[in-house]
Amino acid sequence: MIKTDAMPAINSKRLWQRLQQMGELGGTVNGGCNRQALTDEDKAGRDLFVSWCEQAGCTITVDSMGNIFARRAGRNNELPPVITGSHLDTQPTGGKFDGVYGVLAGVEVLETLQENSIETEHPIEVVVWTNEEGARFSPAMIGSGVWAGVFSEEYGHSRCDKEGKTIGDELNRIGYKGAAPATAKPVKAAFELHIEQGPILEQEDKQIGIVSGVQGMRWYDLTIEGQPCHAGPSPMTVRRDPFMALAPILERLYQLAEQNGPWARVTFGDITAQPGARNTVPERVIMAVDLRHPNQQVLQEMDLEFRRIVEEESAKKKVNSTVRDEWDSPAVSFNEDCITAVRDAVNELGYSNMELFSGAGHDAVYVSQVAPTSMIFIPCEKGISHNEAENADPADIGAGCNVLLRAMLASANS
Amino acid sequence: MIKTDAMPAINSKRLWQRLQQMGELGGTVNGGCNRQALTDEDKAGRDLFVSWCEQAGCTITVDSMGNIFARRAGRNNELPPVITGSHLDTQPTGGKFDGVYGVLAGVEVLETLQENSIETEHPIEVVVWTNEEGARFSPAMIGSGVWAGVFSEEYGHSRCDKEGKTIGDELNRIGYKGAAPATAKPVKAAFELHIEQGPILEQEDKQIGIVSGVQGMRWYDLTIEGQPCHAGPSPMTVRRDPFMALAPILERLYQLAEQNGPWARVTFGDITAQPGARNTVPERVIMAVDLRHPNQQVLQEMDLEFRRIVEEESAKKKVNSTVRDEWDSPAVSFNEDCITAVRDAVNELGYSNMELFSGAGHDAVYVSQVAPTSMIFIPCEKGISHNEAENADPADIGAGCNVLLRAMLASANS
Repeated sequence: MIKTDAMPAINSKRLWQRLQQMGELGGTVNGGCNRQALTDEDKAGRDLFVSWCEQAGCTITVDSMGNIFARRAGRNNELPPVITGSHLDTQPTGGKFDGVYGVLAGVEVLETLQENSIETEHPIEVVVWTNEEGARFSPAMIGSGVWAGVFSEEYGHSRCDKEGKTIGDELNRIGYKGAAPATAKPVKAAFELHIEQGPILEQEDKQIGIVSGVQGMRWYDLTIEGQPCHAGPSPMTVRRDPFMALAPILERLYQLAEQNGPWARVTFGDITAQPGARNTVPERVIMAVDLRHPNQQVLQEMDLEFRRIVEEESAKKKVNSTVRDEWDSPAVSFNEDCITAVRDAVNELGYSNMELFSGAGHDAVYVSQVAPTSMIFIPCEKGISHNEAENADPADIGAGCNVLLRAMLASANS
Repeated sequence: MIKTDAMPAINSKRLWQRLQQMGELGGTVNGGCNRQALTDEDKAGRDLFVSWCEQAGCTITVDSMGNIFARRAGRNNELPPVITGSHLDTQPTGGKFDGVYGVLAGVEVLETLQENSIETEHPIEVVVWTNEEGARFSPAMIGSGVWAGVFSEEYGHSRCDKEGKTIGDELNRIGYKGAAPATAKPVKAAFELHIEQGPILEQEDKQIGIVSGVQGMRWYDLTIEGQPCHAGPSPMTVRRDPFMALAPILERLYQLAEQNGPWARVTFGDITAQPGARNTVPERVIMAVDLRHPNQQVLQEMDLEFRRIVEEESAKKKVNSTVRDEWDSPAVSFNEDCITAVRDAVNELGYSNMELFSGAGHDAVYVSQVAPTSMIFIPCEKGISHNEAENADPADIGAGCNVLLRAMLASANS
């Protein structure tokens, strides 16, 4: 067993430099990154990752979904590995940290162990998951999803981008369709280190977020159908106007979020009015609705209340509404042992911290279905992510990686 | 002078058949019409109109805004003409009567005079005004507006559709940019016959509406700017979400209409959210707002209250809102002599009738700025207009046209 006082520290300067170096692959004039999944830029990023890991003495395996596993042998290689990882693909106008930080922090852990000649009981692996963002190929998190058995390999390979190119073809093209099956194997513990992508840690002035789970998310299309009529002659009292129902529905859904605060989220990201003529009461309004809560039971109640509100207000305003389910991602509670490993590491290092939920989806959501898993967050500037202005403090970058190192070591030696 | 007992009647069967024939140009599977301004369908409609008028012995003039004037000579061609007209363009999912009825009833008047060899002292003209609907090119009533001097010709020609095509280019393309200047000339009297586009005549069981004026109308673009953020991680309390302000703005504007009932109208015809991603709080929401009232003073107060509501709710929700004036059409009182000519005709014919305001804008609004003008309404089924289900009773179609014939004859011979 490694003692705390003998514990090495990661090289945070090297980690920061590598984040910049990786960010140049697909780097944008505004300082962000456009390295979408399975593009030439993504291939270059993968090659760079592989070269660093080989330098650190790792063995590389690529599976049929292009997920890359860099393995550092343990004392007992029959034992399941402790894994960490995230993704290297970005949004079209993305940043240099989302996903990339989790991968390069894993590489930094490998190098630190190597440089300090530290052996672990269990092997350690750093993983790059394919197409987490879902920006080029929908759905998101497809690499980890196939690996975890959520999607079939055939489904994964057949996903198309807007030009009709499939994941399977593009993996072949860039030389990253590996021979290994994209199937989960036994894992001792899995950790994912990530920028928060929200403002909570910054607002609470905490350096580390101990992530105890991921919010459940439900996506809907709410369609409200009324009676189109001319804006002038039709008296207000006889109208069947979709917006007359929508206004109180919005108000009551925001109230619903407040009642289930502070963790409930209600978001209306898009809306369309048809026919969309300035002087005609619309026949139809379609609204994208996104409800989230970390407690699955509460999310379920929010779902029911949402439907009740829509029904009540639609009846009052004599319009017809339908709620179409677009996506249902249940809330995830992370593994207690993994959360404890993170908490212990943070406490040893003395970093300010708080427990929180992830509001966004991550590869860890699918990984958690087949392996004990948890996540570590660090603050990001103003909570801004999926944006070229995405940024993080170098001190936090180093702190998060030291937490990861200790949590992985503790898991790999227990 | 023509005596009442010698008065011819129009051929209501032919008029009805021609309404159906015109409706086939741009006809939709649901029985409506999509013949937007200056499309190929609109060109076909114009060509058909011209062919009918030439058959009825008229001279055709097209002005630089594409307004078409079909002139039947009078006994004294130095005298200003009595004119009638409306528009042939429709909403994207429009009907077969809005505008078209007024034009084809004018053609029917010409034919009736021709067939009965009736001469008039003043010449008679039937006009097709360009782009009344404003569906393809904003603002509405641009053809009559330029003719009446409300807009410059340059402004008219430069209006763009969503694809960036201008009225000027499209007039050239379909061959309807005429040589005549789009400028009002002296007019003895102007009448516009139209379906009511509202439910009042039907509800009151009256066959003819004697229209004494037009509601004032104001069009705005309300833009609400917030802060885009990810739907998951961002707590509700820190969001600057445009929809959080929009919901109470809508509710309060509907209340404003109620307070100023029964003639006030508040309509939201179109809305856009940007960037419009399902899991991102929009940066910007843009809403089309349409306020109407027949009393100009009340409309003015509604305008001020609208701005006050936007300011209050935007401040509360920490978003930035701007109200852009798109169009301002003051309330109109029609000419007493024209109203009397219509009332006399209705009384001679013995049709049930009532006086009312127009809630919709019509070319007659702009025409009334430079010529003695009034309007005649007939009921439309359930008050439905700007809709493929738009319909009218053939008996009312004929009755309205007979009123138009008599009112025009009385004006053209006095």
